[in-house]
Amino acid sequence: MAEWITVTYRIETPGSCAAMAEKIASDQSTGTFTELPGETDAVRRRCAARVLDVVPLAPSETPSLPDDRPGPYNRADARIAYPLEAIGTDIAALMTIAIGGVYAVRGVSGVRVMDIDLPPAWAVHPGPQFGIDGSRRLMGAPEGILLGSIIKPSLGLLPEETAEMVRILCEAGVDFIKDDEKLMSPGYSPLAERIATVMPVIDAHEQKTGKRVMYAWGISAADPDEMMRNHDRVVAAGGSAAVVNINSIGPGGMSFLRRRSQLCLHAHRNGWDMMTRNPGFGMEFRAYQKIWRLLGVDQFQINGIRAKYWEPDESFVRSFEACRTPIFDPADRPLPVVCSGQWGGQAVETYDRTGRTTDLMYLAGGGIHGHPMGPAAGVRAIRQTWDAAVAGETLEDHARDRPELRASLDTFGAR
Amino acid sequence: MAEWITVTYRIETPGSCAAMAEKIASDQSTGTFTELPGETDAVRRRCAARVLDVVPLAPSETPSLPDDRPGPYNRADARIAYPLEAIGTDIAALMTIAIGGVYAVRGVSGVRVMDIDLPPAWAVHPGPQFGIDGSRRLMGAPEGILLGSIIKPSLGLLPEETAEMVRILCEAGVDFIKDDEKLMSPGYSPLAERIATVMPVIDAHEQKTGKRVMYAWGISAADPDEMMRNHDRVVAAGGSAAVVNINSIGPGGMSFLRRRSQLCLHAHRNGWDMMTRNPGFGMEFRAYQKIWRLLGVDQFQINGIRAKYWEPDESFVRSFEACRTPIFDPADRPLPVVCSGQWGGQAVETYDRTGRTTDLMYLAGGGIHGHPMGPAAGVRAIRQTWDAAVAGETLEDHARDRPELRASLDTFGAR
Repeated sequence: MAEWITVTYRIETPGSCAAMAEKIASDQSTGTFTELPGETDAVRRRCAARVLDVVPLAPSETPSLPDDRPGPYNRADARIAYPLEAIGTDIAALMTIAIGGVYAVRGVSGVRVMDIDLPPAWAVHPGPQFGIDGSRRLMGAPEGILLGSIIKPSLGLLPEETAEMVRILCEAGVDFIKDDEKLMSPGYSPLAERIATVMPVIDAHEQKTGKRVMYAWGISAADPDEMMRNHDRVVAAGGSAAVVNINSIGPGGMSFLRRRSQLCLHAHRNGWDMMTRNPGFGMEFRAYQKIWRLLGVDQFQINGIRAKYWEPDESFVRSFEACRTPIFDPADRPLPVVCSGQWGGQAVETYDRTGRTTDLMYLAGGGIHGHPMGPAAGVRAIRQTWDAAVAGETLEDHARDRPELRASLDTFGAR
Repeated sequence: MAEWITVTYRIETPGSCAAMAEKIASDQSTGTFTELPGETDAVRRRCAARVLDVVPLAPSETPSLPDDRPGPYNRADARIAYPLEAIGTDIAALMTIAIGGVYAVRGVSGVRVMDIDLPPAWAVHPGPQFGIDGSRRLMGAPEGILLGSIIKPSLGLLPEETAEMVRILCEAGVDFIKDDEKLMSPGYSPLAERIATVMPVIDAHEQKTGKRVMYAWGISAADPDEMMRNHDRVVAAGGSAAVVNINSIGPGGMSFLRRRSQLCLHAHRNGWDMMTRNPGFGMEFRAYQKIWRLLGVDQFQINGIRAKYWEPDESFVRSFEACRTPIFDPADRPLPVVCSGQWGGQAVETYDRTGRTTDLMYLAGGGIHGHPMGPAAGVRAIRQTWDAAVAGETLEDHARDRPELRASLDTFGAR
């Protein structure tokens, strides 16, 4: 299928899924609501999408979107192929032709974009500049999990308060620290001032220990010029990473940034849940993450086991696997960032359910800051949970002669 | 509330809506999952969001998202105020802090962003460059509806085939023609070649008649630099408008374009339905359109009565009213573009339900191209439907001595 882009849609309708697949193929390429003289065979050959197959699934008793037609609601996975010539290699064209319109189609009680298969011609996109290997290199951490933390509370700290927390986290032994995704450049902590206040702490820690902690700065702005000014401020101060709120800047902002970036781009997908939380509608992460990887995401936040947010564990496990799967080349894989309510107690299950790899960043906020013996003990406790996971031990066993882990289990274990 | 940004959320949960509102206010500003030493009163004063009120609505028997807890599902509109200091005036910050995260909150069976109230400090955004008055000026059409058409089929025409259709539409008497949103710059019709082939037709029509038809070119591209090159090609050829797929380029692409644009920006919201189709989840157009108007949309496609797509008529009517309502100033109102399956039969109802105004663009594709007496008759028929609407006549009465309208009613009337 070298000259085709194939999209898999999970269709749900009280009518025929096969007929709906044909309607989507027509609507998303050449169709309008009435027969037109201009829609010739030549036009169709050039641009018409084709239904490759329709694989039935068990019907559902309840519709994914409100529907006053009686059920059951038939379900099927339909693969539709779009000619490369009709879409080209532009991401906005792909989103518009093969993705965006499908949610407007009348008659479905649900429709979900499950996957996108791209032909080799799509390997023109920049992809991650750093990815897994570059992230490890910048953090000076060639093996094991990369351990990160988020500055909390999310909002409201003055720059000097942030700097003090960074000092504590550096001393505690993390590899990575980030601004909360909600922190960009507010009046009480403008980015330039925050950099000027915090970076000396990171520099001093490197002087003392040889370890340069990676700090990801909240550079996002709707205006790409402003975002680039933020990027340049980070680079000028010797920084190596940035938090990018990909949905809040959109593909245009991300594309603009990546083509000029010298920073490792840590993606927060804030807003993504709107697209995926209804399991019968919207988009599966497997499809979504391909777009953002091609655009240049280096590190991708994907929740974790027993996240504090709504996401089921199986969905996280699928997301992790998606990130681990090359699109065109192993170098286009971002570093999966496991996060949300993580304190180490999920390490064993995470390791066992995600292919027993330590090529990941494990991000803990409250799990470090809230440790009863202090943040350094919180960091040690989390590293101990991963040692246990790799060694195949239970946390209870591993905690026997490790007081930090013992305290973590006692404090956070009921969660 | 000069120093606050207020967001209205429609909350749905089998538990307490008031408690959920408090949780959202905390999660979206300073909170994490455990009590932290850094979350001091000073931090909270600076950044904490406040629940202003929670207005109960009738509970629902079915959850908007799948939920295994028994109903009924309580519903309420909660207004939450965010300190301007915490968000500033950046659109990416607003989306991240007050919008994006709410969809991830555990425990809701539905949550929908209904509206955003912005303080005067937000009047810094560029807004529409042309809007209603500028659109009329560029089209040389100071009064009445603006009548537009879309090149169909959506995809697959060669540039010379597009040019021939443009010639037909110009002669038929439209004010506006646009590329289908799915047409950008594919291999069989690269934008530069399409401009070179089509623009002479528009120029020739102006030479002959004095009427310069506005053509909106599909300039969207994920890469803002490429999009600007497309923009510049249009400007160099004497063009005045562009179709912009706002969700496919995102806020960054739109912001970048608007700050440099000399074109009237016609927004297609392809992909939007994913955010709004579930009435208990996602976002209401009233909230969404404010963001894009501030970013600079001049003309906004919003479907119409009896659209070919899924959208209920009441939703379209609310969208129209939202576009008609100033945010800070009447000049920040975009031209509402009524479209999707429109052929004129909906004119009377549209007029009566949208405040009896003709400050709108009425966009017909198949309704013009598919008219049995040809496109010129299709255009005349649609103008006749609007004459009837303004005169308070029925289409049947108005059609008596107007064969074009009669033929329209006979051909499309059953729809």
